Amino acid sequence: MILDDFFDTMLPAIEEEMQGCVALANGPGLEELHHMMAYHLGWEGEGAGPQASGKRVRPMLVLLSCEAAGGDWRQALPAAAAVELIHNFSLIHDDIQDDSELRRGRTTVWKKWNVAQAINAGDSMFALAHVSLQRLDKYVKPEVALKAARVLPQTSLELTQGQYLDLDYETRENLTVDDYWPMVNGKTAALLAACTQLGALVAGADENIRDLYCSFGKQLGLAFQAYDDLLGIWGDAALTGKSAASDLISGKKSLPVLYAIAKEGDFSKRWEQGPIQQDEVEAIANQLEEEGARQYTQDAADRLTGGALEDLESAKPQGDAAEGLKQLAQRLVKREV
Amino acid sequence: MILDDFFDTMLPAIEEEMQGCVALANGPGLEELHHMMAYHLGWEGEGAGPQASGKRVRPMLVLLSCEAAGGDWRQALPAAAAVELIHNFSLIHDDIQDDSELRRGRTTVWKKWNVAQAINAGDSMFALAHVSLQRLDKYVKPEVALKAARVLPQTSLELTQGQYLDLDYETRENLTVDDYWPMVNGKTAALLAACTQLGALVAGADENIRDLYCSFGKQLGLAFQAYDDLLGIWGDAALTGKSAASDLISGKKSLPVLYAIAKEGDFSKRWEQGPIQQDEVEAIANQLEEEGARQYTQDAADRLTGGALEDLESAKPQGDAAEGLKQLAQRLVKREV
Repeated sequence: MILDDFFDTMLPAIEEEMQGCVALANGPGLEELHHMMAYHLGWEGEGAGPQASGKRVRPMLVLLSCEAAGGDWRQALPAAAAVELIHNFSLIHDDIQDDSELRRGRTTVWKKWNVAQAINAGDSMFALAHVSLQRLDKYVKPEVALKAARVLPQTSLELTQGQYLDLDYETRENLTVDDYWPMVNGKTAALLAACTQLGALVAGADENIRDLYCSFGKQLGLAFQAYDDLLGIWGDAALTGKSAASDLISGKKSLPVLYAIAKEGDFSKRWEQGPIQQDEVEAIANQLEEEGARQYTQDAADRLTGGALEDLESAKPQGDAAEGLKQLAQRLVKREV
Repeated sequence: MILDDFFDTMLPAIEEEMQGCVALANGPGLEELHHMMAYHLGWEGEGAGPQASGKRVRPMLVLLSCEAAGGDWRQALPAAAAVELIHNFSLIHDDIQDDSELRRGRTTVWKKWNVAQAINAGDSMFALAHVSLQRLDKYVKPEVALKAARVLPQTSLELTQGQYLDLDYETRENLTVDDYWPMVNGKTAALLAACTQLGALVAGADENIRDLYCSFGKQLGLAFQAYDDLLGIWGDAALTGKSAASDLISGKKSLPVLYAIAKEGDFSKRWEQGPIQQDEVEAIANQLEEEGARQYTQDAADRLTGGALEDLESAKPQGDAAEGLKQLAQRLVKREV
């Protein structure tokens, strides 16, 4: 598969670029802070290795978008590293906020060190992402570098807002489907949109082409989250409770749930009565499906995926990278990466 | 006094610029996140007002440096807002890390809301600082905007590293005077250097002039911290314990303490035996002074202040702003702002 070849070629370059950037944060007395970041990124400490690093989907989106838009993917490496560092800064803080003790099968940074220094490790990585992006100057003209520098702060702001909404929704009542998309946009789609947009920008693409890449990434992010919500209720693991808790048990206000609450049917009545137990999960998932929530979510996700691929097509992506990008999009929404 | 006139003119413009920037972070469902930031900045909530906002020393340094370097201070407002937002992002996170319940006499953000959302409020303010800086584009040429965009990420990185070291030093043994300066550089001096450098940059100053402004701000920051350490032990409040706890009681590894530890005299022996009590404070402060720690710290602070003012002089600052800048520097090291 073309995408696998791209992963083989690009992944080592992504790791090298990120490592070079994170090395900028080392120095006398800062070895442990550097180690915290290197640990989180899967490079050091117990359990280090590719499985601890995550899939690097975001930097791959940057590089493939750059190549498909007619650029040289190597020139987009500083942007690729930047978005992955932004993503991981938010994960370090997210784990503190969610009180999560495990991430990719390993002890989280705050649990392994402490909350105070984990906040600093996240903040340092946030700063490093912006430092990384500056390395674009080596490859692109100042006006392009300036445009790229404008993308990251706005994206970071949307990301932190999405994070805020996600936490806030846990305790908010009267949420509707309309509240769902801004949260998902911030939490996932804004950064994916930045990935594809930055790739096209480094390639020197015109504004209308950049907008199409941006829209491709954004819709892909929204679709990803909608599919995620489907799997959280109707995925095998969710139904059996074997390897993942159902979103129904955790009380997550996901898209199907918000849809069904608005219908004020049997599901809505049960939801209002309090936490759902494991032995009810299958019946309640069936009830949700009967009320049309599964179909609604599936339709939304499919429509967004279709829109994403349409926009990509309109941007006239070139070469093998065009195919690689489509494959990555498909894998992403199907959760195969 | 000239400086007071500058404060009268510039402060309202600083607040307006910051408010315009923070308003960018508002939107449906985000009102409370916006309120958290506006509360911390002293604009909203109980106890709001100038005394809750802090002194805005950093943005004043930006604007006065711009004006003194021959620029129009109004053009530097986006940079002034940016550094103040960076400063306040770090305070929000700092209060979490230090478990501080009060800041400028008001309940801290994490205490008033919660740790998870306080992390988000800090992160959002961090992102907003970078967004704010982009507003420079209205006033300066792209190459100047690009140079300015390069200053903030590196400065933020140094700030987060200083924050890391400060926390780390609380439990680290065998610290020396050599460990002190990198921590203080990150915690205080890097951001002050960014202030004066950005002001000169917006004014269109040459690189050598910008370097002098940068060095002025950096030495000022180091001097400020050394004087702070002096006051923490020999200030009236520290000695009497009336309105502030002595740094000797809190066990802070300040410059005079690190100096005396290295001398391995009577102070060092007492320090090793554990926490210092209020009734010993005066005697131990005297012991420290006898061992030369007070003079050493005073000399270091004076030398740095002198170096700062010398570099400012070499930059040939112009007009009333030159005088205002010198007054601000003097007030800052004497803790009169």
